[in-house]
Amino acid sequence: MAKDMTLLWGSGSPPCWRIQIALEEKKLQGYNQKLLSFMKGEHKSKQVMDMNPRGQLPVFKHKDYVLNESYAACLYLENQFGGQGNKLVPECPAEQAMMYQRMFEGLSLIEKILHVVHYEWKVPEGERHDSAVKRNKEALTAEVKLWEGYLSKGPGPFLAGKTFSLADVAVYPSIAYLYRFQLSEDRYPKLAAYYNSLKERPSIKTSWPPTWLETPDETGKLKDI
Amino acid sequence: MAKDMTLLWGSGSPPCWRIQIALEEKKLQGYNQKLLSFMKGEHKSKQVMDMNPRGQLPVFKHKDYVLNESYAACLYLENQFGGQGNKLVPECPAEQAMMYQRMFEGLSLIEKILHVVHYEWKVPEGERHDSAVKRNKEALTAEVKLWEGYLSKGPGPFLAGKTFSLADVAVYPSIAYLYRFQLSEDRYPKLAAYYNSLKERPSIKTSWPPTWLETPDETGKLKDI
Repeated sequence: MAKDMTLLWGSGSPPCWRIQIALEEKKLQGYNQKLLSFMKGEHKSKQVMDMNPRGQLPVFKHKDYVLNESYAACLYLENQFGGQGNKLVPECPAEQAMMYQRMFEGLSLIEKILHVVHYEWKVPEGERHDSAVKRNKEALTAEVKLWEGYLSKGPGPFLAGKTFSLADVAVYPSIAYLYRFQLSEDRYPKLAAYYNSLKERPSIKTSWPPTWLETPDETGKLKDI
Repeated sequence: MAKDMTLLWGSGSPPCWRIQIALEEKKLQGYNQKLLSFMKGEHKSKQVMDMNPRGQLPVFKHKDYVLNESYAACLYLENQFGGQGNKLVPECPAEQAMMYQRMFEGLSLIEKILHVVHYEWKVPEGERHDSAVKRNKEALTAEVKLWEGYLSKGPGPFLAGKTFSLADVAVYPSIAYLYRFQLSEDRYPKLAAYYNSLKERPSIKTSWPPTWLETPDETGKLKDI
């Protein structure tokens, strides 16, 4: 039981979800956890600020070690608990290289998703421009096409090849985010197949964002991507 | 001799410089390399696009494995050449956790630097706002203060503690970038001390951006941060 670990998290946040998936894969269940609400501004609460001066979720600690950056936490957990649960860094150099490459390309994917989905939340009203909205959508479309291509040409079925790896831990929540906002399954069939095939994986199913189960998305913000 | 590696790079690019430092630290000299010019648009040349459809530098390959993302390349090199050159991931769990945490916080630092330094290059003329410029500068100031605090309170002298690690490989180029654009050494004395103390480290000195040696910065874009 991972009683020396603590996670403060928000539902639907890809960075939070990455750590939850990694903990499940490494069989580190039983950690202390608390679900906080972004809507209520709880990510800016004193409890969070004391552990993460950035005022962001996730907050993650193992013993006294702070690992609030989700990629940091995932790499650390794999390094410290390598022999436990599923191995998340492939031994084969080709697959390992692909894993790291896709994992970090994943940062471009989530950045471009958030530029579209959170535009109105991030950009004050007087600074908004239709031309920027259009450019952000075009950039996200090009990015999504890249990933559709990777899954079409790659060895599969996972992002780095035959093995579920840190690339999937890092990027699956972003791909699920695309479909949460109603990305077309028809236009991106390989991405949709990847998304659907992993829904039932225990680490992912167990940690599925509870708010997504409760309410459907009604904005359809990514329908025309 | 690392004859099975190829790096296409641009001078002054923190992501390119990270890989160059990692290669030096791992004693992987003698790789194939080509310096390309951002000014001439060579990062969008066919040679680059064929190896990196994102049209970005660095382009890095080991054998047939593509590792264009600088963090991916650094983690891969440490994993594959762990026993060679300097060990860049500390064994001690506390130091290792700090290393990963700082390494990934470094992505916020470079993002905020680029929002200020490249504002006019990134945002089309009709979409620019003084309020955004001001907000970007405030965000960068808060970020730089965080790092000054880390170096004041941390065990030092390196970002994760007593050992030069991947945190330094990843973040030093960004800190040098701050000083390239004339960040105040007086206002941020710990950052300045860190910056100056590592200038002579062989891996860093050897790979110092050649354009920075040739011409001083005259914009002073970060003087008032």
